[in-house]
Amino acid sequence: MKAVVALGGNAIVGRDRRASIEQQFSATRKSMKSIVKMIKEGWHLVITHGNGPQVGAILLQQKMARSIVPPMPLHVCVSLTQGQIGYMIQNCLINELKKEGIKKDVATVITQVIVSKHDEAFKKPTKPIGPVYGEEEAKEMMKSYTMGKYGDGYRMLVPSPEPISIVESEAIKNLMEAGIIVIAAGGGGIPVVAEDGILKGIDAVIDKDLAAEKLASQIKADVLLILSDVDFVYLNYGKEGQRELKSVSAKELERYQKEGHFPAGSMGPKVEAAIRFVRNGGKETIITSIEKAWEALNGETGTHVHA
Amino acid sequence: MKAVVALGGNAIVGRDRRASIEQQFSATRKSMKSIVKMIKEGWHLVITHGNGPQVGAILLQQKMARSIVPPMPLHVCVSLTQGQIGYMIQNCLINELKKEGIKKDVATVITQVIVSKHDEAFKKPTKPIGPVYGEEEAKEMMKSYTMGKYGDGYRMLVPSPEPISIVESEAIKNLMEAGIIVIAAGGGGIPVVAEDGILKGIDAVIDKDLAAEKLASQIKADVLLILSDVDFVYLNYGKEGQRELKSVSAKELERYQKEGHFPAGSMGPKVEAAIRFVRNGGKETIITSIEKAWEALNGETGTHVHA
Repeated sequence: MKAVVALGGNAIVGRDRRASIEQQFSATRKSMKSIVKMIKEGWHLVITHGNGPQVGAILLQQKMARSIVPPMPLHVCVSLTQGQIGYMIQNCLINELKKEGIKKDVATVITQVIVSKHDEAFKKPTKPIGPVYGEEEAKEMMKSYTMGKYGDGYRMLVPSPEPISIVESEAIKNLMEAGIIVIAAGGGGIPVVAEDGILKGIDAVIDKDLAAEKLASQIKADVLLILSDVDFVYLNYGKEGQRELKSVSAKELERYQKEGHFPAGSMGPKVEAAIRFVRNGGKETIITSIEKAWEALNGETGTHVHA
Repeated sequence: MKAVVALGGNAIVGRDRRASIEQQFSATRKSMKSIVKMIKEGWHLVITHGNGPQVGAILLQQKMARSIVPPMPLHVCVSLTQGQIGYMIQNCLINELKKEGIKKDVATVITQVIVSKHDEAFKKPTKPIGPVYGEEEAKEMMKSYTMGKYGDGYRMLVPSPEPISIVESEAIKNLMEAGIIVIAAGGGGIPVVAEDGILKGIDAVIDKDLAAEKLASQIKADVLLILSDVDFVYLNYGKEGQRELKSVSAKELERYQKEGHFPAGSMGPKVEAAIRFVRNGGKETIITSIEKAWEALNGETGTHVHA
């Protein structure tokens, strides 16, 4: 059985967004424990992950050093974080497997994701990323980026377009089928547009769960496992009448989605990815916490979405 | 036929070490032209590359931002540059292949390289990297790093240990055999030490040509193609009696090496890698310039080293 596992931000940095690299390695190591269980039981895995705190740190460093080192475009920053987080996961996973006496290869594949330059998202960038800038700096930044008011200052606003296709899916599939655990499409992938087949990086951030769905569908995974901070998807989350969803059809979930149960900034894209995956031929999407990942895969907990 | 191609720094950044990202993409695109020729003729390639200017830029950004963002260890910085440069090569190569009507997959694999913690290099770090620091900053840096006098200031000095083994060689081999072009072991690889089989990142820089040799031997490549700024290895380079080497045995080359023809900072490690590769069972090492790569592979130019 093949699964794409989408790790949430906390899986890598823990709850402190300013975690040091040692803390990041330690959080990653801990997160690998449920991953190791899946591998032990014979699952073929492709792991994807977010990159919010890491890309934020790079943008902040670029901001501080911009008088000396020209800042790099956002698509290049994503490639940097794929290298960094891929290394951390790959290193921790090899070690945790080793401790269990399992000899298995792990490889990170740098991944580009095609988006459309006609995507509506490019007309109005809405996703705030990176550090807060003062007025003067923000004015300079406006030459290259859309900046939005944020408290007393400004933040970079970037478009969040739809993922259309994973460029490196053949390589990823190939490794997975050879029994190698793959880390891919980190941070939602490096966004590129295709003009006459020529791929060109573009400044945007693709939602990581939607990218994970695209990847899972393209490599024909059986299961898409989305790991977040909560054990279930809830109706009326944090409100009166809160209720966990255990087993739900795409149609039913879509109805709840339309009723506004899932906020755009958190559960929204996960639910959207869940629906898309089973409609694109996937057997099941599971949404649960990293701690419960293995139990959820065994059907003991978590929200299970089917066609 | 299988070849490992080691790209020199100029292949990515051109001759200006402070090249902007656009200039870097443009230099990379140009460098891909001879690579495309090899692929067209049916060669299976694994590409490695240096990362000097890129890791220098990251260290400089970390220096400028260190009051706000904790600097990352050097092994993590190497992983960042593998992501960045891998993306640039992979993007440019896919596009150049496309222009020639070739549909081929390209994938970057983040690569760890095992070194020994008992390597003599760790006793006395000698390789200067990154920006120049003032006295006060240097004193602070000395808490974590060895710093060496450099003109009026100080630079970080790092150990350059021997590569022992490429951790991700199975994944790299697998992709290559599936006809996918692989970019791997960038910047000499991420240095890790193994303690009871547990891999731990360590601050060091592995020579990229020696890492390329290790990779080529481990995946049983036929040819190791080392691309530098000059078309040949020369005896008495830049001196009276300068003479290019066309075809040379490992034994003969070793003699010239002992006579001091090849400086440690430039041709030295390339010659050492060349000798090691053919002694480890490789058919041939070729040292030439990126412009002449294809002609050299065809036996028309370049220095050819055999056992």
